[in-house]
Amino acid sequence: MDVESIFQEVQKELSPKRWRHTQGVMNKAIELAQRHEGNVEQAYLAALLHDVAREWSPEQWVAEAKTAGLVMDEAALHSPVLLHAPLAAWVAKNRFGVTDETVLRAIARHTIGGTGLSLLDQIIYLADGLEEGRSYKGVAELRQLALQDVDAAMLAVYDQTLRYMIKREEAIHPETIAGRNELLWRRDQ
Amino acid sequence: MDVESIFQEVQKELSPKRWRHTQGVMNKAIELAQRHEGNVEQAYLAALLHDVAREWSPEQWVAEAKTAGLVMDEAALHSPVLLHAPLAAWVAKNRFGVTDETVLRAIARHTIGGTGLSLLDQIIYLADGLEEGRSYKGVAELRQLALQDVDAAMLAVYDQTLRYMIKREEAIHPETIAGRNELLWRRDQ
Repeated sequence: MDVESIFQEVQKELSPKRWRHTQGVMNKAIELAQRHEGNVEQAYLAALLHDVAREWSPEQWVAEAKTAGLVMDEAALHSPVLLHAPLAAWVAKNRFGVTDETVLRAIARHTIGGTGLSLLDQIIYLADGLEEGRSYKGVAELRQLALQDVDAAMLAVYDQTLRYMIKREEAIHPETIAGRNELLWRRDQ
Repeated sequence: MDVESIFQEVQKELSPKRWRHTQGVMNKAIELAQRHEGNVEQAYLAALLHDVAREWSPEQWVAEAKTAGLVMDEAALHSPVLLHAPLAAWVAKNRFGVTDETVLRAIARHTIGGTGLSLLDQIIYLADGLEEGRSYKGVAELRQLALQDVDAAMLAVYDQTLRYMIKREEAIHPETIAGRNELLWRRDQ
């Protein structure tokens, strides 16, 4: 399916609120890709599709994850919402015909991050957390940092996420910790 | 070796500061074991020995970990200080003749915590963080909580540790996260 048709389909599928967020992520992802010499087309497509499965019900996440053959880790078992990211990648591939593995991977990893992230993975993760619709203490500084230093911004957004999860007494995904540790160890080398 | 001799040996080996801390952990561990119907003798012995390898040099930690055949995970590779806990268990077994696996395990896990902890594991972990020599914001409340609810206190001390590691931009051990997630998921069942 061509990109214009995907755009129309995704817009139809999402609520106005989620579509505004998606547009914010697209804008931010394009800005970051331009700034850091990433691939703008990939950034656009990954951002457009990243939340396409976000508004499904928990039952639908679990059922479709089975259909898609996704591995249900313990975190997903307790928080099915985590499945929306790999399921969006699955929808992108199987319904919209996206074959670019770099794009699919960035969609799949946009919620928890992880180790060995590509520039596109990082751009989508950051754009999701820093798009203009987000408002929380320190977000302006994080936006500045993301324009200057992708790794430093990833670390700061991981920390922001961890503080939020601690405050809300929620589980923390091991991949998020592994990704944060990798950044710290790489920096300290 | 009898407990009185182990006491003398450990006291001789540690600096005055570390010995004061060890005595604080012993007192707190005994208090918690009494309160929660744990085994006071095991708590005493594990607390006495928990930091016996804490004052070795990084080079010694790494060299002795090889001798002991300990698995060097990535975290220990970057922060050899983490090895002092499993090395203390190794010293307890091989130099002081402690054979009680429950005690050895509590010594080995006292720094990072983890999943499937026994009551003794939890008591030593909490006693290490909450002994009377510790002074940080909120420690008095944590001490109260530890007397009332071991799981809730574990969660609160994990959170305290995570906030500290985030503030200092230090790596977080995956086992600490796994232990915290387990407590949250168990509580929410």
